[in-house]
Amino acid sequence: MRIVHVTHQGEARWGTLSGDTITLTGSLGGAPTGETLPLEGAALLPPATPSKVVCVGRNYLDHIRELGNDTGDLPKEPGIFLKGPNTLAEPGGAVDRPDWTENFHFEGELALVIGKQAKDLTPQNALSHVLGYTCGLDLTARDRQKTDLQWFRAKAADRFCPLGPWLETDLDPRDLRVQTRVNGETKQDSRTSLMIFPVVEILTYVTRFVTLEPGDVVLTGTPEGVGPLVPGDTVEVEVEGIGVLTTHIR
Amino acid sequence: MRIVHVTHQGEARWGTLSGDTITLTGSLGGAPTGETLPLEGAALLPPATPSKVVCVGRNYLDHIRELGNDTGDLPKEPGIFLKGPNTLAEPGGAVDRPDWTENFHFEGELALVIGKQAKDLTPQNALSHVLGYTCGLDLTARDRQKTDLQWFRAKAADRFCPLGPWLETDLDPRDLRVQTRVNGETKQDSRTSLMIFPVVEILTYVTRFVTLEPGDVVLTGTPEGVGPLVPGDTVEVEVEGIGVLTTHIR
Repeated sequence: MRIVHVTHQGEARWGTLSGDTITLTGSLGGAPTGETLPLEGAALLPPATPSKVVCVGRNYLDHIRELGNDTGDLPKEPGIFLKGPNTLAEPGGAVDRPDWTENFHFEGELALVIGKQAKDLTPQNALSHVLGYTCGLDLTARDRQKTDLQWFRAKAADRFCPLGPWLETDLDPRDLRVQTRVNGETKQDSRTSLMIFPVVEILTYVTRFVTLEPGDVVLTGTPEGVGPLVPGDTVEVEVEGIGVLTTHIR
Repeated sequence: MRIVHVTHQGEARWGTLSGDTITLTGSLGGAPTGETLPLEGAALLPPATPSKVVCVGRNYLDHIRELGNDTGDLPKEPGIFLKGPNTLAEPGGAVDRPDWTENFHFEGELALVIGKQAKDLTPQNALSHVLGYTCGLDLTARDRQKTDLQWFRAKAADRFCPLGPWLETDLDPRDLRVQTRVNGETKQDSRTSLMIFPVVEILTYVTRFVTLEPGDVVLTGTPEGVGPLVPGDTVEVEVEGIGVLTTHIR
């Protein structure tokens, strides 16, 4: 099933997508209200209302190498950082390139949204706490990762996390192709099977320390091929079995 | 005015505190409902419902020196990091010492809660966006700050941010005494006038990058004197003009 979040008649609404038609529901996962609208022209919203966005850094070996962070040893534990809800941006939206970074990077990723409260998950029950999967664009002020004490403005500035276009609930996350294109040119092309810490390990690790709430977002890390964005660029993140998240840089 | 957040008959309610009596209101800042209850025995909650908790690291020179982080130059910009809403813990509550840190530290701080949406604040309007001030305990797994990629579990694990006991709305934050006691012994004793970046500078800096929402919490950094906690310890953070936040380590 595909779950969409959309602005309809000035209100944020949830619905399901079948073919090119959105069927609105009374709530997320609720019953259809009888209202439908065409996908084309719909004002899609990020398909999550998180209390936090939990992200994994350095989860693909090729990406570790390209940033010169290869110390010879693989990370022993996932490297986690946070973005706030202020970072979400809608699919098809525009994001301003900030004037306080000289090196504004795209990072295409598989994202997931939590469906029920999760603490101390096990390998057996972890995936049953995932509501669905979507595409995430982890926008990054690369230069500010190095100059700042922590990755606050580098990762967590307003609209630094375009998310969408919808949630796919029926998906096995273990071996999906993840691609990022800039102005139609493929920049990242990898598979989730190359993650150092797969989705189940990310979830069991993170929930040792924090309780994930319904609607919380987890970004699973980016493969190699990251690079700079300039105003006018169009970024597409495509995850196999989900769809394409498009973001315009302004 | 003192604003309290309290559990009453199983519901989270807002109210005001006068002397030893809580007067419940219909909402935060709303009209009194006519219900009152004694402060003694009241089940106080953290006086904020944030979308994010924005924290300043290394904001007192003496604290920078005690951690061996003194490079000779003062920080040129505030060092910001995030905690999620999962970190909040109630005044008078108990926090478990995690089994994954060997060095679990207290950091007593002045905290503030945002009253209205804030972006690109100026020195002139910054303080008018603050709803009130309270005491914060920035619990820290000191060893994990060094071993981990970012300060995720070091700072953002569940219940790592006791907050309270209430909000004081009429307070000038520029020169307040901040003290932390462990089992009655004073460990931190400083003044907010010794901050490298005072409250107004923190707010103008942070809101260049992120939009602060009503209910968001800002922790302003800790002075020198931080140290380890063990089960059985009682931590008190006292900020002049506000009151005492008590936390029991279990």
